[in-house]
Amino acid sequence: MRFCPNKLFTKARNLIGIGLASSATVSAAAPPTASTSTSTSTSSAADTSSTYTTTTTTSDSPSSASSLAVDSSTDDDHKTRLCIIGSGPAAHTAAIYAARAELRPVLFEGWMANGVAPGGQLTTTTDVENFPGFPDGVTGSDLMDRCRRQSLRFGTEIVTETVSKVDFSKRPFRIFTDSRTVLADAVIVATGAVARRLSFDGAGDGPDGFWNRGISACAVCDGAAPIFRNRPLAVIGGGDSAMEEANFLTKFGSKVYIIHRRDNFRASKIMQGRVLKNPKIEVLWNSEVVGAYGDEKSGGRVLGGIKVKNVVNGDVFDLKVNGLFFAIGHEPATKFLDGQLKLDSDGYIVTKPGTTMTSIDGVFAAGDVQDKKYRQAVTAAGTGCMAALDAEHYLQEIGTLEDKSN
Amino acid sequence: MRFCPNKLFTKARNLIGIGLASSATVSAAAPPTASTSTSTSTSSAADTSSTYTTTTTTSDSPSSASSLAVDSSTDDDHKTRLCIIGSGPAAHTAAIYAARAELRPVLFEGWMANGVAPGGQLTTTTDVENFPGFPDGVTGSDLMDRCRRQSLRFGTEIVTETVSKVDFSKRPFRIFTDSRTVLADAVIVATGAVARRLSFDGAGDGPDGFWNRGISACAVCDGAAPIFRNRPLAVIGGGDSAMEEANFLTKFGSKVYIIHRRDNFRASKIMQGRVLKNPKIEVLWNSEVVGAYGDEKSGGRVLGGIKVKNVVNGDVFDLKVNGLFFAIGHEPATKFLDGQLKLDSDGYIVTKPGTTMTSIDGVFAAGDVQDKKYRQAVTAAGTGCMAALDAEHYLQEIGTLEDKSN
Repeated sequence: MRFCPNKLFTKARNLIGIGLASSATVSAAAPPTASTSTSTSTSSAADTSSTYTTTTTTSDSPSSASSLAVDSSTDDDHKTRLCIIGSGPAAHTAAIYAARAELRPVLFEGWMANGVAPGGQLTTTTDVENFPGFPDGVTGSDLMDRCRRQSLRFGTEIVTETVSKVDFSKRPFRIFTDSRTVLADAVIVATGAVARRLSFDGAGDGPDGFWNRGISACAVCDGAAPIFRNRPLAVIGGGDSAMEEANFLTKFGSKVYIIHRRDNFRASKIMQGRVLKNPKIEVLWNSEVVGAYGDEKSGGRVLGGIKVKNVVNGDVFDLKVNGLFFAIGHEPATKFLDGQLKLDSDGYIVTKPGTTMTSIDGVFAAGDVQDKKYRQAVTAAGTGCMAALDAEHYLQEIGTLEDKSN
Repeated sequence: MRFCPNKLFTKARNLIGIGLASSATVSAAAPPTASTSTSTSTSSAADTSSTYTTTTTTSDSPSSASSLAVDSSTDDDHKTRLCIIGSGPAAHTAAIYAARAELRPVLFEGWMANGVAPGGQLTTTTDVENFPGFPDGVTGSDLMDRCRRQSLRFGTEIVTETVSKVDFSKRPFRIFTDSRTVLADAVIVATGAVARRLSFDGAGDGPDGFWNRGISACAVCDGAAPIFRNRPLAVIGGGDSAMEEANFLTKFGSKVYIIHRRDNFRASKIMQGRVLKNPKIEVLWNSEVVGAYGDEKSGGRVLGGIKVKNVVNGDVFDLKVNGLFFAIGHEPATKFLDGQLKLDSDGYIVTKPGTTMTSIDGVFAAGDVQDKKYRQAVTAAGTGCMAALDAEHYLQEIGTLEDKSN
């Protein structure tokens, strides 16, 4: 499956509905803030009675007490061997491995971080057919609930707060939310990526916008919705994803437009061929969307059409569509790192190929935040496992150093 | 989990019990040969009525008919866009992705290839607790049955024969079993590896042996089992893996012996230091295990101790341990390649880091056959997915070339 963005708040788990502190720093949509927080480290996802405060007592256990260079941390700071940031397949697979290795990891699943509920982009998909081990398919939410339960089963401490910043300049590393600081000997960053959105009149998620009311960034997740059946639809983009999504949407829509700013696609020849041969698809070259408006029959509640501008002659024309799908790439959730890890030109974390090692010793990256090529749930899970094993190896090494200094 | 070797024949599926041709070339244990073969390409694992001969008709379908340089192949040769060799998580994840991409892959799952039933090393494990998505665990056999059904569901053609040799010197590539030749535009090698085992009295998997009843080749998979908790344990080996596994086992056992034939370790200094300083670890130098016996309290059902021989003076002494772990390396199943792909000094296929590309364009490698570092089911599955996407990309490219030449 490919992933889809942020049905804002609509899929937040009951668990986290009890209301937690959070930060907007890495969140595309600023969530409501509250003054309490929850961490879960029992084997039941439903058991939220253990608060963050009580779980800090685990910092006295042998497996979570070490650090290379303890400095001005207060007694209130929470210490752990390993902190995992993220809540998708990469984060939870890392947690499962690390917890089984008795590292007692602390996992920040975020509170609508990047506008996505804990569980990551998978929670915004419907059926997942290609995650190995599920011959009859599994819903994205169910798969992530299962992974989360598995993390908890082996002793992961899950904190439902969004990490607002980190300090990797000293050891132990520091991980901050609005209300907490955690000190960690090693960190795994698995914050994922979200689909890019365009900004124009009517594209927002406020009362005047049609986001999630006709505008989506994921044809695969939303295309089958009743409001799109036998209606004209449009896809924005020119890459393989746009071609795939347009083809996919012809199963549902009466017609599918591809709107592209240039006069040729960068998609592979074969994908272009499929699209250009599809009688239900029409390509609008040299075009961009400049506005969206409501459907009169619905009282303006859902998308009724868009304004399209020809970028060559500047003409703006009207296009009646009831669905508009962005297929213009993804954005990795790396802003909260504030440049402390080496990123590539697209903002993805650079890892040493074949490993999960980042530019800082002891900080590892897994999943979509470091993968712009494969971006699958199972590849993310695989790198999550690698990150846990890399981190464990690293911790064994610094354990030796620490023994020497003591 | 890491994997454990070959309960020979004991876990062969009912499905393949109907008896197929095979080759001993890549098989550690020569299997019985027969004159018929079976391929399965329906959505039901129980349906074995479609024979290899009937499925060759699919070579006329558009998705499996192309090749760059067809030469002296006969009409009987079976052609496919993509051939996958292997039957573990890497092979089946590749198949799931390739089949969903309409490549109609042919997958050779082997007939006791390397002495392991189709499904690979996972079929020789018991509970798998660390494959993400299974919070209550899953047996290795069940997990692989599920993956296999998923491959079939999307149209993979599974052939229960062992590949005896390949010819990657011309295109299409040729894949041979004792009874067939398949021509393929692209190949994914996912034949895995098996843990090395020592042979001594009581080490076997028969009624007199303690294999899987105290003796294991994988501390990471089995170390946390209740039968090892607070018991004396032993690891055989002198490399980094042995050090890591011994350290790992101190989390569970009351004491951990490392038994090593020589008077020094070849493990890295840092790993040695960690072991030598660990108060729960004792090293028995110049020692080898010559026998294993049962625990009286269990009626002799599980391991109670081992006989250890000092190789310098020949003394044999008794060591009470309830767990014995081989950490003496793995052997990748690459002999059938006969040097046609670049291998490293340990026989593993060399891939371009961060991809599954081998030294030959169009041949990809996934899973343990190219991974001596992580070797987990989920990492294998991740690279299987990568291989399918890499192969699909490659096939789109050569497909384009072919369109041009036509």
